[in-house]
Amino acid sequence: MATNSELKIGYQGAPGAFSHRAVKIFAEELGRLDEVVPVSCKTFDEVFARLLSHECSYGVIPLENSSVGSIVANYDLLWKNKVEMVGEIYLPIHHNLIGFSDTDISKLEEIYSHPVALDQCRTFLKELSHSKAVSYWDTSAAAFFVKETGSRVFAAIASEFAAEESGLVILRRDIEDFSGNRTRFGVITLVNGHPPTPPPAPIKISCVVELAHQPGALANLLRNLAILGVNLTKIESRPIPETPWHYRFFLDIEVPFDEVSDAVASTVGKLSEAHKILGRYKPWQETAS
Amino acid sequence: MATNSELKIGYQGAPGAFSHRAVKIFAEELGRLDEVVPVSCKTFDEVFARLLSHECSYGVIPLENSSVGSIVANYDLLWKNKVEMVGEIYLPIHHNLIGFSDTDISKLEEIYSHPVALDQCRTFLKELSHSKAVSYWDTSAAAFFVKETGSRVFAAIASEFAAEESGLVILRRDIEDFSGNRTRFGVITLVNGHPPTPPPAPIKISCVVELAHQPGALANLLRNLAILGVNLTKIESRPIPETPWHYRFFLDIEVPFDEVSDAVASTVGKLSEAHKILGRYKPWQETAS
Repeated sequence: MATNSELKIGYQGAPGAFSHRAVKIFAEELGRLDEVVPVSCKTFDEVFARLLSHECSYGVIPLENSSVGSIVANYDLLWKNKVEMVGEIYLPIHHNLIGFSDTDISKLEEIYSHPVALDQCRTFLKELSHSKAVSYWDTSAAAFFVKETGSRVFAAIASEFAAEESGLVILRRDIEDFSGNRTRFGVITLVNGHPPTPPPAPIKISCVVELAHQPGALANLLRNLAILGVNLTKIESRPIPETPWHYRFFLDIEVPFDEVSDAVASTVGKLSEAHKILGRYKPWQETAS
Repeated sequence: MATNSELKIGYQGAPGAFSHRAVKIFAEELGRLDEVVPVSCKTFDEVFARLLSHECSYGVIPLENSSVGSIVANYDLLWKNKVEMVGEIYLPIHHNLIGFSDTDISKLEEIYSHPVALDQCRTFLKELSHSKAVSYWDTSAAAFFVKETGSRVFAAIASEFAAEESGLVILRRDIEDFSGNRTRFGVITLVNGHPPTPPPAPIKISCVVELAHQPGALANLLRNLAILGVNLTKIESRPIPETPWHYRFFLDIEVPFDEVSDAVASTVGKLSEAHKILGRYKPWQETAS
Protein backbone atom coordinates (compact mmCIF):
# COMPACT_ATOMS: atom_id res chain seq x y z
CA MET A 1 0.00 0.00 0.00
CA ALA A 2 1.16 3.53 -0.71
CA THR A 3 1.87 5.50 2.45
CA ASN A 4 0.14 8.81 3.02
CA SER A 5 3.24 10.84 2.34
CA GLU A 6 3.90 9.41 -1.06
CA LEU A 7 1.71 8.96 -4.12
CA LYS A 8 2.86 6.23 -6.48
CA ILE A 9 1.87 6.59 -10.13
CA GLY A 10 2.61 3.84 -12.65
CA TYR A 11 3.56 4.48 -16.30
CA GLN A 12 4.97 2.39 -19.11
CA GLY A 13 8.57 3.21 -19.99
CA ALA A 14 11.80 4.36 -18.39
CA PRO A 15 12.31 7.72 -16.63
CA GLY A 16 12.15 10.35 -19.36
CA ALA A 17 9.52 8.48 -21.41
CA PHE A 18 6.62 10.56 -22.74
CA SER A 19 4.34 8.79 -20.25
CA HIS A 20 6.68 9.83 -17.41
CA ARG A 21 6.30 13.45 -18.56
CA ALA A 22 2.51 13.00 -18.46
CA VAL A 23 2.79 11.67 -14.86
CA LYS A 24 4.60 14.89 -13.85
CA ILE A 25 1.96 17.07 -15.48
CA PHE A 26 -0.79 15.18 -13.65
CA ALA A 27 1.13 15.54 -10.35
CA GLU A 28 1.39 19.29 -10.92
CA GLU A 29 -2.35 19.52 -11.62
CA LEU A 30 -3.00 17.68 -8.35
CA GLY A 31 -0.70 20.16 -6.61
CA ARG A 32 1.24 17.19 -5.19
CA LEU A 33 4.40 17.18 -7.32
CA ASP A 34 6.62 16.72 -4.22
CA GLU A 35 4.81 13.60 -3.03
CA VAL A 36 4.58 11.82 -6.36
CA VAL A 37 6.77 8.76 -6.94
CA PRO A 38 6.62 7.78 -10.63
CA VAL A 39 6.81 3.97 -10.99
CA SER A 40 8.38 2.75 -14.24
CA CYS A 41 6.63 -0.34 -15.73
CA LYS A 42 7.77 -2.54 -18.62
CA THR A 43 4.31 -3.06 -20.13
CA PHE A 44 0.78 -1.60 -20.10
CA ASP A 45 -0.40 -4.77 -18.33
CA GLU A 46 2.08 -4.04 -15.56
CA VAL A 47 0.62 -0.53 -15.08
CA PHE A 48 -2.81 -2.11 -14.56
CA ALA A 49 -1.41 -4.89 -12.33
CA ARG A 50 0.29 -2.39 -10.00
CA LEU A 51 -3.02 -0.52 -9.63
CA LEU A 52 -4.99 -3.69 -8.94
CA SER A 53 -2.45 -4.80 -6.31
CA HIS A 54 -2.80 -1.39 -4.59
CA GLU A 55 0.89 -0.68 -5.08
CA CYS A 56 0.14 2.41 -7.19
CA SER A 57 -2.64 4.93 -6.59
CA TYR A 58 -2.82 6.01 -10.24
CA GLY A 59 -1.63 4.94 -13.65
CA VAL A 60 -1.00 7.00 -16.78
CA ILE A 61 -1.48 5.28 -20.16
CA PRO A 62 -1.43 6.51 -23.78
CA LEU A 63 -4.88 6.28 -25.43
CA GLU A 64 -4.43 7.80 -28.88
CA ASN A 65 -1.85 9.47 -31.05
CA SER A 66 -2.58 11.88 -33.88
CA SER A 67 -0.44 9.98 -36.37
CA VAL A 68 -1.09 6.34 -35.42
CA GLY A 69 -4.65 6.58 -34.06
CA SER A 70 -6.05 4.81 -30.99
CA ILE A 71 -3.89 2.51 -28.88
CA VAL A 72 -6.51 -0.21 -28.90
CA ALA A 73 -4.60 -2.47 -26.48
CA ASN A 74 -5.20 0.07 -23.71
CA TYR A 75 -8.89 0.46 -24.57
CA ASP A 76 -9.20 -3.32 -24.27
CA LEU A 77 -7.46 -3.21 -20.84
CA LEU A 78 -9.80 -0.40 -19.71
CA TRP A 79 -12.80 -2.50 -20.71
CA LYS A 80 -11.55 -5.62 -18.90
CA ASN A 81 -10.24 -4.21 -15.60
CA LYS A 82 -11.93 -2.62 -12.59
CA VAL A 83 -10.34 0.78 -13.12
CA GLU A 84 -11.74 4.18 -13.98
CA MET A 85 -10.42 7.23 -15.82
CA VAL A 86 -10.02 10.35 -13.71
CA GLY A 87 -8.22 12.62 -16.14
CA GLU A 88 -6.69 13.15 -19.56
CA ILE A 89 -3.50 14.85 -20.71
CA TYR A 90 -2.43 15.86 -24.22
CA LEU A 91 1.32 16.01 -24.91
CA PRO A 92 3.08 17.17 -28.09
CA ILE A 93 5.42 14.41 -29.27
CA HIS A 94 8.82 15.50 -30.55
CA HIS A 95 11.59 13.00 -31.23
CA ASN A 96 15.26 13.90 -30.95
CA LEU A 97 18.54 12.20 -31.76
CA ILE A 98 20.32 11.88 -28.43
CA GLY A 99 23.96 11.06 -27.65
CA PHE A 100 27.18 12.41 -26.15
CA SER A 101 28.18 16.01 -26.84
CA ASP A 102 31.26 14.84 -28.80
CA THR A 103 29.38 12.20 -30.86
CA ASP A 104 29.80 12.65 -34.62
CA ILE A 105 26.46 11.96 -36.37
CA SER A 106 28.20 10.93 -39.58
CA LYS A 107 30.00 8.13 -37.74
CA LEU A 108 26.98 6.62 -35.98
CA GLU A 109 26.66 2.84 -36.32
CA GLU A 110 23.54 2.07 -34.29
CA ILE A 111 20.47 4.14 -33.35
CA TYR A 112 18.28 2.74 -30.55
CA SER A 113 14.62 3.49 -29.89
CA HIS A 114 11.11 2.09 -29.47
CA PRO A 115 9.86 0.62 -32.78
CA VAL A 116 6.98 3.09 -33.03
CA ALA A 117 9.41 6.03 -32.64
CA LEU A 118 11.73 4.52 -35.29
CA ASP A 119 8.69 4.25 -37.55
CA GLN A 120 7.86 7.95 -36.98
CA CYS A 121 11.39 9.12 -37.94
CA ARG A 122 11.81 7.27 -41.23
CA THR A 123 12.86 10.29 -43.29
CA PHE A 124 15.61 11.18 -40.85
CA LEU A 125 16.80 7.55 -40.59
CA LYS A 126 16.98 7.31 -44.38
CA GLU A 127 19.52 10.17 -44.31
CA LEU A 128 21.63 8.15 -41.89
CA SER A 129 21.64 5.03 -44.01
CA HIS A 130 25.15 4.16 -42.77
CA SER A 131 23.67 3.33 -39.33
CA LYS A 132 21.35 0.54 -38.14
CA ALA A 133 18.05 1.39 -36.42
CA VAL A 134 17.86 -0.97 -33.44
CA SER A 135 14.58 -1.64 -31.67
CA TYR A 136 14.49 -1.13 -27.88
CA TRP A 137 11.63 -1.59 -25.42
CA ASP A 138 11.33 2.12 -24.60
CA THR A 139 12.55 5.43 -26.07
CA SER A 140 14.02 6.76 -22.85
CA ALA A 141 15.48 3.38 -21.83
CA ALA A 142 17.34 3.50 -25.15
CA ALA A 143 18.93 6.82 -24.10
CA PHE A 144 20.00 5.31 -20.75
CA PHE A 145 21.46 2.32 -22.60
CA VAL A 146 23.54 4.57 -24.88
CA LYS A 147 24.77 6.52 -21.84
CA GLU A 148 25.73 3.27 -20.10
CA THR A 149 27.76 1.97 -23.03
CA GLY A 150 29.66 5.25 -23.23
CA SER A 151 29.84 4.63 -26.97
CA ARG A 152 30.14 7.50 -29.47
CA VAL A 153 28.93 5.31 -32.35
CA PHE A 154 25.57 4.70 -30.61
CA ALA A 155 22.70 7.18 -30.31
CA ALA A 156 19.04 7.02 -29.21
CA ILE A 157 15.78 8.56 -30.44
CA ALA A 158 13.77 9.92 -27.51
CA SER A 159 12.20 13.00 -25.92
CA GLU A 160 14.03 16.11 -24.74
CA PHE A 161 13.08 14.99 -21.25
CA ALA A 162 14.92 11.67 -21.82
CA ALA A 163 18.08 13.58 -22.76
CA GLU A 164 17.88 15.44 -19.44
CA GLU A 165 17.14 12.31 -17.39
CA SER A 166 19.92 10.25 -18.96
CA GLY A 167 22.48 13.05 -18.87
CA LEU A 168 23.00 13.04 -22.63
CA VAL A 169 22.54 15.89 -25.13
CA ILE A 170 20.32 16.46 -28.17
CA LEU A 171 22.33 15.96 -31.38
CA ARG A 172 19.42 16.74 -33.72
CA ARG A 173 16.07 18.17 -32.63
CA ASP A 174 12.51 17.34 -33.87
CA ILE A 175 13.41 14.57 -36.29
CA GLU A 176 9.86 13.18 -36.59
CA ASP A 177 8.37 12.83 -40.09
CA PHE A 178 5.23 14.82 -39.35
CA SER A 179 4.90 17.89 -37.17
CA GLY A 180 1.82 18.35 -35.01
CA ASN A 181 2.17 14.82 -33.61
CA ARG A 182 0.55 14.56 -30.17
CA THR A 183 -0.57 11.85 -27.79
CA ARG A 184 -3.56 11.75 -25.47
CA PHE A 185 -2.94 10.03 -22.13
CA GLY A 186 -5.56 8.79 -19.67
CA VAL A 187 -5.12 8.90 -15.90
CA ILE A 188 -6.60 5.78 -14.30
CA THR A 189 -7.28 4.61 -10.76
CA LEU A 190 -9.04 1.67 -9.09
CA VAL A 191 -12.83 1.87 -9.12
CA ASN A 192 -13.76 3.17 -5.66
CA GLY A 193 -10.08 3.16 -4.79
CA HIS A 194 -9.15 6.81 -4.98
CA PRO A 195 -12.43 8.51 -5.85
CA PRO A 196 -11.52 11.84 -7.39
CA THR A 197 -13.29 15.01 -6.31
CA PRO A 198 -15.99 15.72 -8.90
CA PRO A 199 -14.51 18.06 -11.49
CA PRO A 200 -16.10 21.45 -12.24
CA ALA A 201 -18.13 21.62 -15.45
CA PRO A 202 -17.66 20.94 -18.32
CA ILE A 203 -17.09 17.23 -17.73
CA LYS A 204 -15.87 14.61 -20.13
CA ILE A 205 -17.31 11.10 -19.87
CA SER A 206 -15.54 8.14 -21.47
CA CYS A 207 -17.51 4.94 -21.97
CA VAL A 208 -17.59 1.68 -23.86
CA VAL A 209 -20.85 0.21 -25.13
CA GLU A 210 -21.77 -3.02 -26.87
CA LEU A 211 -24.66 -2.86 -29.32
CA ALA A 212 -26.52 -5.52 -31.27
CA HIS A 213 -25.82 -5.46 -34.99
CA GLN A 214 -29.14 -4.00 -36.04
CA PRO A 215 -29.80 -0.93 -38.14
CA GLY A 216 -30.45 2.05 -35.95
CA ALA A 217 -29.05 0.80 -32.62
CA LEU A 218 -26.20 3.30 -32.68
CA ALA A 219 -28.32 6.07 -34.23
CA ASN A 220 -30.88 5.61 -31.47
CA LEU A 221 -28.24 5.87 -28.74
CA LEU A 222 -26.66 8.98 -30.31
CA ARG A 223 -30.05 10.63 -30.85
CA ASN A 224 -30.93 10.17 -27.19
CA LEU A 225 -27.55 11.60 -26.19
CA ALA A 226 -28.03 14.55 -28.54
CA ILE A 227 -31.36 15.33 -26.88
CA LEU A 228 -29.39 15.83 -23.64
CA GLY A 229 -27.38 18.56 -25.42
CA VAL A 230 -24.02 16.81 -25.09
CA ASN A 231 -21.04 16.83 -27.46
CA LEU A 232 -19.59 13.63 -28.83
CA THR A 233 -15.80 14.17 -29.10
CA LYS A 234 -14.79 10.64 -30.05
CA ILE A 235 -16.46 7.56 -31.47
CA GLU A 236 -14.76 4.39 -32.63
CA SER A 237 -16.15 0.97 -33.44
CA ARG A 238 -14.23 -2.20 -32.68
CA PRO A 239 -15.43 -5.65 -33.71
CA ILE A 240 -15.81 -8.10 -30.79
CA PRO A 241 -13.73 -11.11 -31.85
CA GLU A 242 -15.76 -13.65 -29.84
CA THR A 243 -19.14 -12.42 -31.09
CA PRO A 244 -19.29 -11.89 -34.85
CA TRP A 245 -21.46 -8.98 -36.02
CA HIS A 246 -21.49 -7.39 -32.59
CA TYR A 247 -19.57 -4.21 -32.03
CA ARG A 248 -18.01 -2.40 -29.14
CA PHE A 249 -17.92 1.40 -29.39
CA PHE A 250 -15.57 3.73 -27.55
CA LEU A 251 -17.29 7.07 -26.88
CA ASP A 252 -16.10 10.34 -25.36
CA ILE A 253 -18.89 12.75 -24.45
CA GLU A 254 -18.59 16.29 -23.13
CA VAL A 255 -21.42 17.48 -20.89
CA PRO A 256 -22.00 21.13 -19.98
CA PHE A 257 -23.29 20.52 -16.41
CA ASP A 258 -22.63 17.80 -13.86
CA GLU A 259 -26.36 17.05 -13.61
CA VAL A 260 -26.32 15.80 -17.19
CA SER A 261 -23.67 13.15 -16.38
CA ASP A 262 -26.15 10.87 -14.67
CA ALA A 263 -28.63 11.20 -17.53
CA VAL A 264 -25.84 10.26 -19.96
CA ALA A 265 -24.91 7.20 -17.87
CA SER A 266 -28.52 6.05 -17.63
CA THR A 267 -29.14 6.57 -21.37
CA VAL A 268 -26.02 4.58 -22.22
CA GLY A 269 -27.11 1.83 -19.82
CA LYS A 270 -30.65 1.59 -21.18
CA LEU A 271 -29.80 1.59 -24.90
CA SER A 272 -26.89 -0.87 -24.99
CA GLU A 273 -26.47 -4.63 -24.52
CA ALA A 274 -23.51 -4.04 -22.21
CA HIS A 275 -21.65 -0.92 -21.18
CA LYS A 276 -18.97 0.48 -18.91
CA ILE A 277 -18.54 4.09 -17.86
CA LEU A 278 -14.76 4.43 -17.95
CA GLY A 279 -14.80 7.68 -16.00
CA ARG A 280 -15.89 11.30 -15.60
CA TYR A 281 -13.15 13.88 -15.59
CA LYS A 282 -12.07 17.39 -16.51
CA PRO A 283 -11.37 17.75 -20.24
CA TRP A 284 -7.81 18.76 -21.09
CA GLN A 285 -7.37 22.51 -21.47
CA GLU A 286 -4.78 23.66 -23.96
CA THR A 287 -2.45 26.09 -22.16
CA ALA A 288 -1.18 29.19 -23.93
CA SER A 289 2.44 27.96 -23.95
CA MET B 1 0.34 3.30 -69.27
CA ALA B 2 -0.23 -0.34 -68.51
CA THR B 3 -0.53 -2.44 -71.65
CA ASN B 4 -3.60 -4.58 -72.20
CA SER B 5 -1.81 -7.84 -71.54
CA GLU B 6 -0.51 -6.90 -68.13
CA LEU B 7 -2.21 -5.49 -65.06
CA LYS B 8 0.11 -3.61 -62.73
CA ILE B 9 -0.90 -3.47 -59.06
CA GLY B 10 1.07 -1.37 -56.56
CA TYR B 11 1.65 -2.38 -52.93
CA GLN B 12 3.89 -1.20 -50.12
CA GLY B 13 6.69 -3.61 -49.28
CA ALA B 14 9.00 -6.13 -50.90
CA PRO B 15 7.88 -9.34 -52.64
CA GLY B 16 6.52 -11.60 -49.89
CA ALA B 17 5.08 -8.71 -47.84
CA PHE B 18 1.56 -9.21 -46.49
CA SER B 19 0.34 -6.57 -48.98
CA HIS B 20 1.90 -8.58 -51.82
CA ARG B 21 -0.11 -11.61 -50.66
CA ALA B 22 -3.25 -9.43 -50.72
CA VAL B 23 -2.42 -8.40 -54.32
CA LYS B 24 -2.34 -12.08 -55.34
CA ILE B 25 -5.67 -12.77 -53.68
CA PHE B 26 -7.24 -9.81 -55.49
CA ALA B 27 -5.75 -11.02 -58.80
CA GLU B 28 -7.27 -14.46 -58.21
CA GLU B 29 -10.66 -12.92 -57.48
CA LEU B 30 -10.41 -10.99 -60.74
CA GLY B 31 -9.55 -14.25 -62.49
CA ARG B 32 -6.46 -12.54 -63.97
CA LEU B 33 -3.65 -14.00 -61.87
CA ASP B 34 -1.51 -14.65 -64.97
CA GLU B 35 -1.65 -11.04 -66.17
CA VAL B 36 -0.99 -9.36 -62.85
CA VAL B 37 2.38 -7.68 -62.29
CA PRO B 38 2.74 -6.73 -58.60
CA VAL B 39 4.69 -3.46 -58.26
CA SER B 40 6.69 -3.10 -55.03
CA CYS B 41 6.60 0.43 -53.54
CA LYS B 42 8.66 1.86 -50.68
CA THR B 43 5.86 3.92 -49.14
CA PHE B 44 2.05 4.27 -49.13
CA ASP B 45 2.48 7.62 -50.90
CA GLU B 46 4.30 5.83 -53.70
CA VAL B 47 1.38 3.40 -54.15
CA PHE B 48 -0.94 6.40 -54.64
CA ALA B 49 1.58 8.21 -56.89
CA ARG B 50 1.90 5.21 -59.23
CA LEU B 51 -1.89 5.11 -59.57
CA LEU B 52 -2.16 8.83 -60.24
CA SER B 53 0.58 8.64 -62.90
CA HIS B 54 -1.35 5.77 -64.60
CA GLU B 55 1.59 3.43 -64.13
CA CYS B 56 -0.50 1.05 -62.02
CA SER B 57 -4.13 0.11 -62.58
CA TYR B 58 -4.78 -0.77 -58.94
CA GLY B 59 -3.18 -0.36 -55.53
CA VAL B 60 -3.57 -2.49 -52.40
CA ILE B 61 -3.15 -0.75 -49.03
CA PRO B 62 -3.65 -1.85 -45.40
CA LEU B 63 -6.57 -0.04 -43.72
CA GLU B 64 -6.83 -1.57 -40.27
CA ASN B 65 -5.32 -4.27 -38.12
CA SER B 66 -7.06 -6.05 -35.26
CA SER B 67 -4.25 -5.37 -32.80
CA VAL B 68 -3.12 -1.85 -33.76
CA GLY B 69 -6.40 -0.39 -35.09
CA SER B 70 -6.84 1.81 -38.16
CA ILE B 71 -3.88 2.84 -40.30
CA VAL B 72 -4.95 6.47 -40.28
CA ALA B 73 -2.22 7.57 -42.71
CA ASN B 74 -3.97 5.61 -45.47
CA TYR B 75 -7.41 6.97 -44.58
CA ASP B 76 -5.93 10.46 -44.91
CA LEU B 77 -4.46 9.56 -48.32
CA LEU B 78 -7.85 8.16 -49.43
CA TRP B 79 -9.52 11.42 -48.41
CA LYS B 80 -6.98 13.58 -50.26
CA ASN B 81 -6.50 11.72 -53.54
CA LYS B 82 -8.76 11.11 -56.53
CA VAL B 83 -8.95 7.37 -56.01
CA GLU B 84 -11.76 5.00 -55.13
CA MET B 85 -11.99 1.71 -53.30
CA VAL B 86 -13.13 -1.24 -55.39
CA GLY B 87 -12.56 -4.08 -52.96
CA GLU B 88 -11.44 -5.25 -49.55
CA ILE B 89 -9.40 -8.25 -48.41
CA TYR B 90 -8.90 -9.65 -44.90
CA LEU B 91 -5.66 -11.54 -44.23
CA PRO B 92 -4.61 -13.37 -41.07
CA ILE B 93 -1.23 -12.04 -39.92
CA HIS B 94 1.29 -14.59 -38.66
CA HIS B 95 4.90 -13.67 -38.03
CA ASN B 96 7.72 -16.18 -38.33
CA LEU B 97 11.43 -16.21 -37.57
CA ILE B 98 13.12 -16.76 -40.90
CA GLY B 99 16.72 -17.74 -41.70
CA PHE B 100 18.92 -20.44 -43.22
CA SER B 101 18.14 -24.08 -42.51
CA ASP B 102 21.40 -24.47 -40.58
CA THR B 103 20.99 -21.27 -38.53
CA ASP B 104 21.18 -21.85 -34.76
CA ILE B 105 18.58 -19.67 -33.00
CA SER B 106 20.60 -19.57 -29.80
CA LYS B 107 23.50 -17.94 -31.66
CA LEU B 108 21.52 -15.20 -33.43
CA GLU B 109 22.99 -11.72 -33.07
CA GLU B 110 20.60 -9.57 -35.12
CA ILE B 111 16.93 -9.98 -36.02
CA TYR B 112 15.62 -7.73 -38.81
CA SER B 113 12.02 -6.68 -39.44
CA HIS B 114 9.58 -3.80 -39.84
CA PRO B 115 9.20 -1.92 -36.53
CA VAL B 116 5.48 -2.76 -36.24
CA ALA B 117 6.25 -6.49 -36.64
CA LEU B 118 9.03 -6.24 -34.03
CA ASP B 119 6.50 -4.57 -31.73
CA GLN B 120 4.03 -7.46 -32.27
CA CYS B 121 6.60 -10.13 -31.34
CA ARG B 122 7.85 -8.69 -28.06
CA THR B 123 7.40 -11.85 -26.00
CA PHE B 124 9.40 -13.92 -28.46
CA LEU B 125 12.14 -11.28 -28.75
CA LYS B 126 12.43 -11.12 -24.96
CA GLU B 127 13.35 -14.83 -25.01
CA LEU B 128 16.13 -14.05 -27.47
CA SER B 129 17.63 -11.30 -25.36
CA HIS B 130 21.11 -12.17 -26.65
CA SER B 131 20.17 -10.74 -30.06
CA LYS B 132 19.41 -7.21 -31.25
CA ALA B 133 16.10 -6.42 -32.94
CA VAL B 134 17.00 -4.26 -35.93
CA SER B 135 14.41 -2.12 -37.67
CA TYR B 136 14.06 -2.54 -41.46
CA TRP B 137 11.73 -0.80 -43.92
CA ASP B 138 9.71 -3.92 -44.69
CA THR B 139 9.26 -7.44 -43.23
CA SER B 140 9.91 -9.29 -46.44
CA ALA B 141 12.76 -6.99 -47.50
CA ALA B 142 14.38 -7.96 -44.18
CA ALA B 143 14.23 -11.64 -45.25
CA PHE B 144 15.86 -10.81 -48.60
CA PHE B 145 18.54 -8.82 -46.77
CA VAL B 146 19.35 -11.80 -44.51
CA LYS B 147 19.52 -14.08 -47.56
CA GLU B 148 21.87 -11.66 -49.30
CA THR B 149 24.29 -11.45 -46.37
CA GLY B 150 24.44 -15.25 -46.19
CA SER B 151 24.91 -14.79 -42.45
CA ARG B 152 23.87 -17.48 -39.95
CA VAL B 153 23.82 -14.97 -37.06
CA PHE B 154 21.14 -12.85 -38.78
CA ALA B 155 17.44 -13.71 -39.06
CA ALA B 156 14.26 -11.86 -40.13
CA ILE B 157 10.69 -11.71 -38.88
CA ALA B 158 8.23 -11.97 -41.77
CA SER B 159 5.39 -13.96 -43.35
CA GLU B 160 5.56 -17.57 -44.53
CA PHE B 161 5.20 -16.14 -48.02
CA ALA B 162 8.38 -14.07 -47.47
CA ALA B 163 10.29 -17.22 -46.53
CA GLU B 164 9.24 -18.77 -49.87
CA GLU B 165 10.01 -15.65 -51.90
CA SER B 166 13.45 -15.15 -50.37
CA GLY B 167 14.41 -18.82 -50.47
CA LEU B 168 14.91 -19.05 -46.70
CA VAL B 169 13.19 -21.33 -44.19
CA ILE B 170 10.98 -20.81 -41.15
CA LEU B 171 13.02 -21.31 -37.96
CA ARG B 172 10.09 -20.64 -35.60
CA ARG B 173 6.45 -20.33 -36.66
CA ASP B 174 3.70 -17.94 -35.38
CA ILE B 175 5.83 -15.89 -32.98
CA GLU B 176 3.33 -13.00 -32.67
CA ASP B 177 2.22 -11.99 -29.15
CA PHE B 178 -1.50 -12.26 -29.88
CA SER B 179 -3.24 -14.84 -32.01
CA GLY B 180 -6.19 -13.82 -34.16
CA ASN B 181 -4.25 -10.86 -35.57
CA ARG B 182 -5.60 -9.87 -38.99
CA THR B 183 -5.34 -6.95 -41.38
CA ARG B 184 -7.96 -5.48 -43.67
CA PHE B 185 -6.63 -4.24 -47.02
CA GLY B 186 -8.39 -1.93 -49.46
CA VAL B 187 -8.08 -2.24 -53.23
CA ILE B 188 -7.96 1.20 -54.84
CA THR B 189 -8.04 2.58 -58.37
CA LEU B 190 -8.24 5.98 -60.06
CA VAL B 191 -11.68 7.60 -59.98
CA ASN B 192 -13.14 6.88 -63.43
CA GLY B 193 -9.88 5.21 -64.36
CA HIS B 194 -10.78 1.55 -64.13
CA PRO B 195 -14.46 1.59 -63.26
CA PRO B 196 -15.22 -1.79 -61.71
CA THR B 197 -18.26 -3.76 -62.76
CA PRO B 198 -20.96 -3.16 -60.14
CA PRO B 199 -20.71 -5.93 -57.56
CA PRO B 200 -23.69 -8.16 -56.79
CA ALA B 201 -25.56 -7.39 -53.55
CA PRO B 202 -24.80 -7.02 -50.68
CA ILE B 203 -22.57 -4.00 -51.30
CA LYS B 204 -20.23 -2.26 -48.90
CA ILE B 205 -19.86 1.52 -49.17
CA SER B 206 -16.89 3.30 -47.59
CA CYS B 207 -17.13 7.03 -47.10
CA VAL B 208 -15.65 9.97 -45.22
CA VAL B 209 -17.84 12.78 -43.92
CA GLU B 210 -17.11 16.07 -42.19
CA LEU B 211 -19.72 17.28 -39.71
CA ALA B 212 -20.09 20.48 -37.77
CA HIS B 213 -19.46 20.12 -34.04
CA GLN B 214 -23.07 20.39 -32.97
CA PRO B 215 -25.07 17.97 -30.84
CA GLY B 216 -27.05 15.63 -33.01
CA ALA B 217 -25.26 16.11 -36.35
CA LEU B 218 -23.93 12.56 -36.32
CA ALA B 219 -27.08 11.10 -34.74
CA ASN B 220 -29.16 12.71 -37.48
CA LEU B 221 -26.98 11.25 -40.23
CA LEU B 222 -27.03 7.76 -38.67
CA ARG B 223 -30.79 7.89 -38.08
CA ASN B 224 -31.38 8.71 -41.75
CA LEU B 225 -29.08 5.88 -42.78
CA ALA B 226 -30.87 3.48 -40.41
CA ILE B 227 -34.20 4.37 -42.06
CA LEU B 228 -32.71 3.01 -45.29
CA GLY B 229 -32.20 -0.35 -43.53
CA VAL B 230 -28.41 -0.39 -43.88
CA ASN B 231 -25.79 -1.81 -41.52
CA LEU B 232 -22.97 0.32 -40.18
CA THR B 233 -19.88 -1.91 -39.93
CA LYS B 234 -17.31 0.75 -39.00
CA ILE B 235 -17.32 4.25 -37.59
CA GLU B 236 -14.33 6.25 -36.46
CA SER B 237 -13.95 9.92 -35.66
CA ARG B 238 -10.77 11.82 -36.45
CA PRO B 239 -10.24 15.44 -35.41
CA ILE B 240 -9.44 17.78 -38.33
CA PRO B 241 -6.19 19.47 -37.28
CA GLU B 242 -6.80 22.67 -39.26
CA THR B 243 -10.37 23.15 -38.01
CA PRO B 244 -10.73 22.75 -34.24
CA TRP B 245 -14.00 21.17 -33.07
CA HIS B 246 -14.77 19.80 -36.49
CA TYR B 247 -14.57 16.08 -37.07
CA ARG B 248 -14.05 13.77 -39.96
CA PHE B 249 -15.76 10.36 -39.69
CA PHE B 250 -14.80 7.20 -41.54
CA LEU B 251 -17.88 5.06 -42.18
CA ASP B 252 -18.39 1.62 -43.70
CA ILE B 253 -21.98 0.80 -44.57
CA GLU B 254 -23.39 -2.47 -45.89
CA VAL B 255 -26.47 -2.21 -48.09
CA PRO B 256 -28.69 -5.15 -49.01
CA PHE B 257 -29.58 -3.99 -52.56
CA ASP B 258 -27.73 -1.91 -55.12
CA GLU B 259 -30.69 0.51 -55.36
CA VAL B 260 -30.03 1.59 -51.78
CA SER B 261 -26.46 2.68 -52.60
CA ASP B 262 -27.61 5.88 -54.31
CA ALA B 263 -29.91 6.72 -51.42
CA VAL B 264 -26.99 6.26 -49.02
CA ALA B 265 -24.76 8.52 -51.13
CA SER B 266 -27.41 11.23 -51.33
CA THR B 267 -28.18 11.05 -47.59
CA VAL B 268 -24.47 11.36 -46.77
CA GLY B 269 -24.16 14.29 -49.17
CA LYS B 270 -27.18 16.18 -47.79
CA LEU B 271 -26.38 15.75 -44.08
CA SER B 272 -22.67 16.57 -44.01
CA GLU B 273 -20.55 19.69 -44.51
CA ALA B 274 -18.23 17.80 -46.83
CA HIS B 275 -18.05 14.16 -47.88
CA LYS B 276 -16.37 11.68 -50.16
CA ILE B 277 -17.70 8.28 -51.21
CA LEU B 278 -14.50 6.22 -51.15
CA GLY B 279 -16.09 3.36 -53.06
CA ARG B 280 -18.75 0.67 -53.47
CA TYR B 281 -17.52 -2.87 -53.46
CA LYS B 282 -18.20 -6.48 -52.55
CA PRO B 283 -17.73 -7.13 -48.82
CA TRP B 284 -15.05 -9.69 -47.99
CA GLN B 285 -16.40 -13.22 -47.60
CA GLU B 286 -14.59 -15.43 -45.11
CA THR B 287 -13.70 -18.64 -46.93
CA ALA B 288 -13.94 -21.99 -45.18
CA SER B 289 -10.16 -22.56 -45.24
